[in-house]
Amino acid sequence: MRMSRKKYVHGYTDRESERLSDQAQTLTTLLHEDTRYPQGSEVLEAGCGIGAQTVILAKNSPGANITSVDISADSLRRAEDMIRKESLTNVTFSQGDIFHLPFPSGTFDHIFVCFVLEHLAEPLRALERLRPLLKKGGTITVIEGDHGSAFFHPGSQYAQRSIDCLVNLQRNMGGNALIGRQLYPLLVSAGFDEVLVSPRMVYVDATRPLLKEGFTRLTFTAMVEGVRDSVIEQGMISTEDWEKGIRDLHRTCGNDGVFCYTFFKATGTRS
Amino acid sequence: MRMSRKKYVHGYTDRESERLSDQAQTLTTLLHEDTRYPQGSEVLEAGCGIGAQTVILAKNSPGANITSVDISADSLRRAEDMIRKESLTNVTFSQGDIFHLPFPSGTFDHIFVCFVLEHLAEPLRALERLRPLLKKGGTITVIEGDHGSAFFHPGSQYAQRSIDCLVNLQRNMGGNALIGRQLYPLLVSAGFDEVLVSPRMVYVDATRPLLKEGFTRLTFTAMVEGVRDSVIEQGMISTEDWEKGIRDLHRTCGNDGVFCYTFFKATGTRS
Repeated sequence: MRMSRKKYVHGYTDRESERLSDQAQTLTTLLHEDTRYPQGSEVLEAGCGIGAQTVILAKNSPGANITSVDISADSLRRAEDMIRKESLTNVTFSQGDIFHLPFPSGTFDHIFVCFVLEHLAEPLRALERLRPLLKKGGTITVIEGDHGSAFFHPGSQYAQRSIDCLVNLQRNMGGNALIGRQLYPLLVSAGFDEVLVSPRMVYVDATRPLLKEGFTRLTFTAMVEGVRDSVIEQGMISTEDWEKGIRDLHRTCGNDGVFCYTFFKATGTRS
Repeated sequence: MRMSRKKYVHGYTDRESERLSDQAQTLTTLLHEDTRYPQGSEVLEAGCGIGAQTVILAKNSPGANITSVDISADSLRRAEDMIRKESLTNVTFSQGDIFHLPFPSGTFDHIFVCFVLEHLAEPLRALERLRPLLKKGGTITVIEGDHGSAFFHPGSQYAQRSIDCLVNLQRNMGGNALIGRQLYPLLVSAGFDEVLVSPRMVYVDATRPLLKEGFTRLTFTAMVEGVRDSVIEQGMISTEDWEKGIRDLHRTCGNDGVFCYTFFKATGTRS
């Protein structure tokens, strides 16, 4: 939402699209299992991107009427393709800016925001703008990662530095890759009540090969690798150190390796 | 275990004893709830310290015969006092070195090790020594923290540096404050089978005042504060920066503050 194409830290390549789909599939249960909207409820998905979460939302709440918005027309086209391929009929797409959505106050029973706030320079203002769109008693659900929650074995200063490069790049672009830990104060400051945050840790070792592949390699490490050209061009790290960092992230997928990362899921109500 | 009194990073003061009791009480459910040993089973607690975990073990498994060992006679006396005050009768205490315990091979059905490996220069060798003490089919349960898993809001480089001081001090003393993430490879390397690790995250925000007090302040921050004199004497940090760090750790207990820390619990069997 809001950012132009060139400002989206992960870019819009096909590989990035694949990454988003892989991520969504592996983490579906962990992140989405407890979000089920009732029959007939009006749900706004603010910032649907290419629809990776939209498909899950629509499947988990088949009776809900979901309105999914994004600022990027191109992303919306991909999202519509995904929904059509899955033969889902409970989603309406609409192009729009999260800060200026064309809905009357009190339109929605529920709002869902996933992996969006991390890219916004003003996440608090976004939440403040979304709140009035809820009916009284309506809920907001927000899911974000936190790259500062990543730790692993074997330890590696190079791997840590490559992650820090992504965090710094995202900060330079106006975003915040450490936003997960801030969901509680953000939702409270935006005026939501009954704010509850639950961390969702992804723990990966040799006993969890699907997560090793689906999360450590194809989600997290692929995401870091995705900013390679930008961070090297900007002189944030040498090519040699970067490659050591990426190698060491893959190294955590060895038989004795361990990788930990925490997502945060928050809910709040409009009283 | 193993280390002499002066080498135990947290020291042996009364305040430290209180800290250990507070910690045990607040975290009991999170860490211990799923450890229940059957009637008549022989359980070794290797490294009982002043008995903070012993009391929980003994209460949760009233029918088990628990043998609790520690290298420190003084700690054992305190542990015996604690058990006596609670009127528990299923614990026997014995002084001994975790690397040279005086039990025949195959003595125990279960071994329990909590907050011990982090203080050992050779945690793998300790596990290798413990394994033969199990009957075939017997289990080991290991619980450790990982100070590298701590992250918080508001962020603070001073708070991070004060934590790093504790990590470095413990490393200089031959321990490893980042051992939690390594439980999987350690247990596998020591020859245990069916190794399973589950992370136990403590998430603290304003909705969890008991954890704010019992964990963030009285457990984690108190533990960091406990090494103040050592790290300042050793020139690891200036007094001024240290005090900023401690202030900023307490600051995470403000209304908008958030604190996260992860313990790791591992189980394995002797086939």
